[in-house]
Amino acid sequence: MVKIKAGVLGATGAVGQRFIEGLKNHPWFDLTSVAASERSAGKKYKDAAKWRLESELPADIAEMTVVNVDPKEVDADIVFSALPSDEAKTAEPAFAQAGMAVASNTSSYRMVADVPLLIPECNADHIGMIKVQQEKRGWEGYLTTNPNCTTVMFCLPLKPLMKFGIETVHLASMQAVSGAGYEGVPSMAILGNVIPYIGGEEEKVEMEAQKILGKFDGEKFVDAPFTVSASCHRVPVMDGHTEAVWVTMRENPTPAEVKKAMRDFDAGLKGLPTEPEVPLAVMEEIDRPQPRLDRNKGRGMTVSVGRIRPGVTGVKFICMGHNTVRGAAGASILNAELLHKKGLL
Amino acid sequence: MVKIKAGVLGATGAVGQRFIEGLKNHPWFDLTSVAASERSAGKKYKDAAKWRLESELPADIAEMTVVNVDPKEVDADIVFSALPSDEAKTAEPAFAQAGMAVASNTSSYRMVADVPLLIPECNADHIGMIKVQQEKRGWEGYLTTNPNCTTVMFCLPLKPLMKFGIETVHLASMQAVSGAGYEGVPSMAILGNVIPYIGGEEEKVEMEAQKILGKFDGEKFVDAPFTVSASCHRVPVMDGHTEAVWVTMRENPTPAEVKKAMRDFDAGLKGLPTEPEVPLAVMEEIDRPQPRLDRNKGRGMTVSVGRIRPGVTGVKFICMGHNTVRGAAGASILNAELLHKKGLL
Amino acid sequence: MVKIKAGVLGATGAVGQRFIEGLKNHPWFDLTSVAASERSAGKKYKDAAKWRLESELPADIAEMTVVNVDPKEVDADIVFSALPSDEAKTAEPAFAQAGMAVASNTSSYRMVADVPLLIPECNADHIGMIKVQQEKRGWEGYLTTNPNCTTVMFCLPLKPLMKFGIETVHLASMQAVSGAGYEGVPSMAILGNVIPYIGGEEEKVEMEAQKILGKFDGEKFVDAPFTVSASCHRVPVMDGHTEAVWVTMRENPTPAEVKKAMRDFDAGLKGLPTEPEVPLAVMEEIDRPQPRLDRNKGRGMTVSVGRIRPGVTGVKFICMGHNTVRGAAGASILNAELLHKKGLL
Amino acid sequence: MVKIKAGVLGATGAVGQRFIEGLKNHPWFDLTSVAASERSAGKKYKDAAKWRLESELPADIAEMTVVNVDPKEVDADIVFSALPSDEAKTAEPAFAQAGMAVASNTSSYRMVADVPLLIPECNADHIGMIKVQQEKRGWEGYLTTNPNCTTVMFCLPLKPLMKFGIETVHLASMQAVSGAGYEGVPSMAILGNVIPYIGGEEEKVEMEAQKILGKFDGEKFVDAPFTVSASCHRVPVMDGHTEAVWVTMRENPTPAEVKKAMRDFDAGLKGLPTEPEVPLAVMEEIDRPQPRLDRNKGRGMTVSVGRIRPGVTGVKFICMGHNTVRGAAGASILNAELLHKKGLL
Repeated sequence: MVKIKAGVLGATGAVGQRFIEGLKNHPWFDLTSVAASERSAGKKYKDAAKWRLESELPADIAEMTVVNVDPKEVDADIVFSALPSDEAKTAEPAFAQAGMAVASNTSSYRMVADVPLLIPECNADHIGMIKVQQEKRGWEGYLTTNPNCTTVMFCLPLKPLMKFGIETVHLASMQAVSGAGYEGVPSMAILGNVIPYIGGEEEKVEMEAQKILGKFDGEKFVDAPFTVSASCHRVPVMDGHTEAVWVTMRENPTPAEVKKAMRDFDAGLKGLPTEPEVPLAVMEEIDRPQPRLDRNKGRGMTVSVGRIRPGVTGVKFICMGHNTVRGAAGASILNAELLHKKGLL
Repeated sequence: MVKIKAGVLGATGAVGQRFIEGLKNHPWFDLTSVAASERSAGKKYKDAAKWRLESELPADIAEMTVVNVDPKEVDADIVFSALPSDEAKTAEPAFAQAGMAVASNTSSYRMVADVPLLIPECNADHIGMIKVQQEKRGWEGYLTTNPNCTTVMFCLPLKPLMKFGIETVHLASMQAVSGAGYEGVPSMAILGNVIPYIGGEEEKVEMEAQKILGKFDGEKFVDAPFTVSASCHRVPVMDGHTEAVWVTMRENPTPAEVKKAMRDFDAGLKGLPTEPEVPLAVMEEIDRPQPRLDRNKGRGMTVSVGRIRPGVTGVKFICMGHNTVRGAAGASILNAELLHKKGLL
Repeated sequence: MVKIKAGVLGATGAVGQRFIEGLKNHPWFDLTSVAASERSAGKKYKDAAKWRLESELPADIAEMTVVNVDPKEVDADIVFSALPSDEAKTAEPAFAQAGMAVASNTSSYRMVADVPLLIPECNADHIGMIKVQQEKRGWEGYLTTNPNCTTVMFCLPLKPLMKFGIETVHLASMQAVSGAGYEGVPSMAILGNVIPYIGGEEEKVEMEAQKILGKFDGEKFVDAPFTVSASCHRVPVMDGHTEAVWVTMRENPTPAEVKKAMRDFDAGLKGLPTEPEVPLAVMEEIDRPQPRLDRNKGRGMTVSVGRIRPGVTGVKFICMGHNTVRGAAGASILNAELLHKKGLL
Repeated sequence: MVKIKAGVLGATGAVGQRFIEGLKNHPWFDLTSVAASERSAGKKYKDAAKWRLESELPADIAEMTVVNVDPKEVDADIVFSALPSDEAKTAEPAFAQAGMAVASNTSSYRMVADVPLLIPECNADHIGMIKVQQEKRGWEGYLTTNPNCTTVMFCLPLKPLMKFGIETVHLASMQAVSGAGYEGVPSMAILGNVIPYIGGEEEKVEMEAQKILGKFDGEKFVDAPFTVSASCHRVPVMDGHTEAVWVTMRENPTPAEVKKAMRDFDAGLKGLPTEPEVPLAVMEEIDRPQPRLDRNKGRGMTVSVGRIRPGVTGVKFICMGHNTVRGAAGASILNAELLHKKGLL
């Protein structure tokens, strides 16, 4: 099989490096282009980026020349975008216009009406919007997005609860520092500390879930009719967002029924290379999931849930997943796998 | 003035050390007796305890001989108890029986019907129960308690909101390791990690607030009619419990009204030596309170509140305080000051 | 091939768990027996031990029944010992007497005259002592040891420098908390802190290197004629011991010559399953090795060296390796592989 | 007494904030001017700087208008400089030329021949160079410096050992993140990690001690005749540099003699307001000093020494002090107090 050519936009940053790691030896995609800011363009990747992952920088990527974030310089069928949101605003449409598929991890277009915001296990049918988008915008390519890293960790466990009639969600997050990028959180800010604020995060978390868990009616997305209230906090953890979630549901299922619904959940995603065997793992241990022990499950793509117990009404539980894999680069790659499987790549 | 003689039960542990620190140079109390387990009894305090606070062990306490946790060996008008809960069960009544006042930081008697669970700013009138308790039990002394360290941080900000008719409280805590005692949390468990479970904590947090914010009708306590649902988590922070709180209220006040109510709150506690000038501090900075920066406010006795904003309905906010001062030893000492002022010591 | 039957003594603790992890799917060894204290004996392993590694507890081991640390109860050709040193003192000889090989990670017998203290890359020929030991003690089995976790990280880089005539070694360690076992370092002791003392560590570090890098003359070990002075410190790192080392050498080689000697170092260990391709990795990056980024190199068996530069006289450098793999369980397993290859198993 | 007018250059950064904290309520100095970069000039201090210390920003400083780093805009008798080293190079001489005393914490002029590098307890007589400097340069004001934060922690304990004839010093530092400034060390770099490199640090540490502990002969400084070899490392500690030090001395004193020399050390500095009662504290506890427990001794101005024991030859010990107080702002302020006492202000 001829592999699909893939580019990474914003390839030198923290999420960009996770894209490179995730595309290494990928059975379907071949990383053919790494693009970054003018400062990096023209340099070898190994000179432009300071590699900061535990896994080694692949030798062939190290020698690749970084190009500008410009459709003319990027040779790819699909580009994965880890661009800052202001740059993404103009750059991502340009790539779609130029005929490429864009799988974006950036927030800029997530809530735009004709752009799918995808978690393959939750709303694979939302890719139906792509045709609408292309017609409306006259693009040969198209633009898809994945959610904020905090959103994905609680949306996946909510999916099997939709049948109970979700009404409200309270969510308190304890987020890893890697979510802010390499320079994002100074050590003097976070060592032995909690920062009870992450700019813009609560707004994203409170809006995205209803779109993801809503319906695509053939023309537009119809929001799921529940409310989310989030309180987002940074803690001294490297990777892995932990979230305490309360869910009230119209049918008021017991914790046992909730647990069964999660355990029985079948996303129907067979054959996607990075889809883990168990995308939603329900744990029985009293003190799990924990970021340090559980974030790498399913090669970072499993969301772990534990402590499902009664809330005020409804239930409360803990969910946790790897924020720069399942919550960022890995999410985009899984989306791209879905697109390929559905014939869109 | 002749000082009141004070003893500390469980004097060698983490909270016991905070008691010693808090009683140093106290204008009303004179630490005359330090009691601990058989292993320590008979030794000089400096040899029995490994002092682990930044402040220095007072020289006179260092040389004091540790006695057994036995009313016959303790010469005191009031004893501060930092005993393990099983030992407290038998020891604390014995001290009350022997005519001493007991100010306990232990959980054993907090929820017992005739035992006041005190936060002086919230329910000073609950000390009326002491007379009932003495009559019922035939004690010359008496037993009072202070709440769990997580409870106090959100009860104090709830107090001025009682007039709005509190209905439900959701609470997610991010708790410091010192709350578990010196050996309580191994570093291998918590470095770069979150542990989403603290044994027995959620139950305590969910029960104590209604008693504290309830009424004393002259004979019994009548619970405040709201529900609390807690999710408790340990984070890699030394001191200071941070809590994300959602409150729904019958009168549905705006965040501005909530903030004003907290700012206007007057606990009416003048003249207690360790009562801070501002027991409940409302912060305006977008990213505060933070444990590392704010835990020592009011010498550790101030609870700081920030980010008061709309919740699903009602409001949500962040509160934070020093768990081993305001949440433990300092709480007991403030209770004792109240008891003295009210003529009970 | 019939696999060699292996047992683990002290199987429930931190190093015991690393033994189980290291023996999983081992091509030569088959874990047939897990032994631990009376408290655990008779229980299933999964009930006796709280598994604390990121990798999952192998399902077959989970169901295995823990036996007592008694040669009669352990069915094995070789036992790997992670026993506390006082228990090891009597238990390890009993296993050797009973005809088993003992590969011990415990300190008890390391410095005993007829017991090899092995780093296969450094002193594989020291296994010649086994015959002497068996004759002297009348054992059918035998006892071998691996060094302290801090010792191995600097002995491996010293080996290729022996030809320059090592005279003195100054060593300052920054050691991970896992070296003290799961309950060894309370979080209240180490969060945001350095503890400049580790009981007994400096003495071990100062004695072991000369034995390891010394000669076996057919009858006894002759110490290498250099002096080591160590200062050992605990830092808030989970895994990975980092060491700053100064070496003075009679021939006073340049940093470039030292680097070349390390790069050219060939341990001559072909075909040992867990021997990494590069046991001693010389890094050029100015700020490496770092524990978080480099400890898992060679599946935890590579020692990384960097910053080779001039010292007062001689050179100084940084070395780092995984303390519970290369410095503990992995070291014993590599020793066992050597023993098997040399026909001693 | 009319107070001496003091300005702070680089007032908004981490060390600048420590200067403001240290000058608050100072009996001799009155903070009259805060200067910072163009970006801040013209703003109120509270708007220009994000205050990040636990102590509160003094209310009067909060309202002060920040001026440019320009002698014409700064009204002061002495300026404390926390400027970046490249800016300091031109700015500091300009202030000296304009008639002000400059007490600089910056590295730019430390090793310049006619500039005193002061630790008052070590080389108060080096201020004799000021007159030489003024004559040579034609300045009305003058320029003094304090050492690198790592240098001061080991120079103070070396001072009483000079009489034994110091020959060589090996030093491994474990440095706090605050030494790099607020944005200096990203949390992703240091959480659970050690970085075995700090740019330029080892060079500074290896040069400064000989100047400080050398002699002033009336015209020039004569270096003390010993060699220092340093290995500098960053650890996840907020404040407090810990150092492992080996010292060889011609007279080869015992650890007991070394300890006695340190205990008997009298710096002869009576009456300086921030000089602690014990500038050099010798600790007996086996595991001290520790940064979290000991850094605030003497209000951050005490250097603590422990574990004095035999080295290869000579002795080894641990020393530790607060890097942004004794190692930065507090050092400059103590220098200024010395200058005032000696009639130079």
